[in-house]
Amino acid sequence: MKKTYLMTPGPTPVPPDTSIELARPVYHHRTDRFKATLEEVTRLLKDLLQTAGDVFLMAASGTGAMEACIANTLGRGDRALCVRGGKFGERWGNICEAFGITPVHLDIEWGDAPDAAQIARLLDESPGVKAVCVQLCETSTATVTDIEAIGQVTRDRDVLLIVDGVSGVGALEFRMDAWNVDLVAVGSQKALMMPPGLAVVAAGPRAMERIEAAHAPVFYLDLKAAKAAADKSSTPFTAPVPLVEGLLHSLRQISEEGVEAVWARHARLGRAMRAGVRALGLELFSKHPADCVTGIRVPEGVDGQALLADIEATDGVKFAGGQAHAKGKIIRVSTMGYAGPFDVVIALAALEMGLSRAGYQVELGAGVKAAESVFLEG
Amino acid sequence: MKKTYLMTPGPTPVPPDTSIELARPVYHHRTDRFKATLEEVTRLLKDLLQTAGDVFLMAASGTGAMEACIANTLGRGDRALCVRGGKFGERWGNICEAFGITPVHLDIEWGDAPDAAQIARLLDESPGVKAVCVQLCETSTATVTDIEAIGQVTRDRDVLLIVDGVSGVGALEFRMDAWNVDLVAVGSQKALMMPPGLAVVAAGPRAMERIEAAHAPVFYLDLKAAKAAADKSSTPFTAPVPLVEGLLHSLRQISEEGVEAVWARHARLGRAMRAGVRALGLELFSKHPADCVTGIRVPEGVDGQALLADIEATDGVKFAGGQAHAKGKIIRVSTMGYAGPFDVVIALAALEMGLSRAGYQVELGAGVKAAESVFLEG
Repeated sequence: MKKTYLMTPGPTPVPPDTSIELARPVYHHRTDRFKATLEEVTRLLKDLLQTAGDVFLMAASGTGAMEACIANTLGRGDRALCVRGGKFGERWGNICEAFGITPVHLDIEWGDAPDAAQIARLLDESPGVKAVCVQLCETSTATVTDIEAIGQVTRDRDVLLIVDGVSGVGALEFRMDAWNVDLVAVGSQKALMMPPGLAVVAAGPRAMERIEAAHAPVFYLDLKAAKAAADKSSTPFTAPVPLVEGLLHSLRQISEEGVEAVWARHARLGRAMRAGVRALGLELFSKHPADCVTGIRVPEGVDGQALLADIEATDGVKFAGGQAHAKGKIIRVSTMGYAGPFDVVIALAALEMGLSRAGYQVELGAGVKAAESVFLEG
Repeated sequence: MKKTYLMTPGPTPVPPDTSIELARPVYHHRTDRFKATLEEVTRLLKDLLQTAGDVFLMAASGTGAMEACIANTLGRGDRALCVRGGKFGERWGNICEAFGITPVHLDIEWGDAPDAAQIARLLDESPGVKAVCVQLCETSTATVTDIEAIGQVTRDRDVLLIVDGVSGVGALEFRMDAWNVDLVAVGSQKALMMPPGLAVVAAGPRAMERIEAAHAPVFYLDLKAAKAAADKSSTPFTAPVPLVEGLLHSLRQISEEGVEAVWARHARLGRAMRAGVRALGLELFSKHPADCVTGIRVPEGVDGQALLADIEATDGVKFAGGQAHAKGKIIRVSTMGYAGPFDVVIALAALEMGLSRAGYQVELGAGVKAAESVFLEG
């Protein structure tokens, strides 16, 4: 028997109570019972996203939700400013290109976050850009973006603000309406404490106007059809009922804790994780570290991929490595969703032992000690 | 305590053993463990579909798989022959239109099946048609189509045969390669005995040629990306791991029973169901009844919607009614997937009692008796 610990930034652990929901008998989606479930899920998602806008559920991964945001609001020949500072920023551009939309890339160093003033300048230089596409948390670099500041830039222009909230929403502060976000994409397998397979799109009034006016090449991800169905507390196609029931369970847990308390919990976990990393003499990968996932630079002389493989094989703790050109250079530790202080303790203890086995000098216990100090501060 | 019975043609009951799989802890999709699962699922799906072609999994409803078949192989300005004899036949046309593809409709009466000779004539009259889109089982009318005969027509022409197998594959005889089917779409929530949320597309060599050559406006449902990932036993985006594990469990059950034995079981259930219906003096809705779902014409003087509501409320048995203009005119009883002789007995007993309560004269037990006779024949 070896206990295992999933600490990747998606999928993340599912609370046992939510797992049980997934195993319950399937029932029909065209029923009052499902209608009531969908209504409660929608209400709780609106609370979580802090929006009075429309919320749509779909059987898809987070990428399906990202595509829905783009394909329903922009058309062939349109231009969209895509912030590209990691793998998921690149995805915005790739999605645009698939639909004949020209991405105007704002390239930033991996680990850096986009600056609202830079975006404002680029928009001024690029008339006709119809949307800004950005990540709340760029998971590949463990970086958080100041969405509120960017919303100040897009608000008064005829430019939509489209946010990939897949790995941030439910963990990081996010106020869709107050921050002037027009569209946000969310996936189930991150801070929503669910398995992958369910995606959420929320759309504000400016986005809905574009959606209603568009003649988009969409069918399965058609948000006009989603809106017509949602207005009747339904979905256009067969809903993945057990996943929606599971999500309801997770959302109720978030609601019970309180949305702001959930953000505060993640902030504290992130702070403790970073304190531990620094106490071990390690460097953070990101200049704007996110609280839900911590990126640690693999120290000189250590083989990052071998280190992670050893920690998983020896201690049963699964961290994520780097993607694309960050492969082998970064260790990513998720503290999002179903996570508490002892997950930080486990992560740091595993790092300490793993680095030690790799021949890298660390003071055993120093990371854990620093994290405990943060937790004792409250 | 009231026992309930889900007898709708999707979703269908999930075997308890499969349900348990859905509740297991989530694990990461970029692992050898998931690779092995995906390889076995792919192998078992190829056995089930009787194909040496490519098989792709996606987090989506069956409609997503239907869209993937169309959007990856046909382009703006292309024409596709769409057989329209029910709600899902209509969907082929709607998907085509969403992508600027012109549907050439072959309209047939609801409850009738398309004739291969008719399709051949229409293809001869409509040069340039690039695909024929048809249902294996048109669920809305409980009708089966002779795909093999249509495959003889499309085989020697430069025309793809695209089959909606969502509610047929896994229940009805289906031989993708031998019948010259180029693309088939499958959903998890029908004969595959799974909850909704997972879709399958299988593509033969002629389809793969088109897919590789196309510049399709697709991203999430991009089958080129799916092929590149599948060749490495992977998926392009985050896979819904628990659903894939659940599907593996169901496919193993099918494999253990034997694919041909599964078809024979469904044929027998369908035969018994029809014998029971006829013994009650009721009429079948379809001229070519499918074995996996039986459509019964609501008799004169009976309010179909009230009848189904009463049977559900009183006896806990959920049948499906009619869709669109068949609303109130048809009762649809599924015997697909996790179904055996006593499900037919329950369905007929519920019908007998429900019709009786509705004031319609039936001989109580006559339907069940006829079904038992079929089962005793073997």
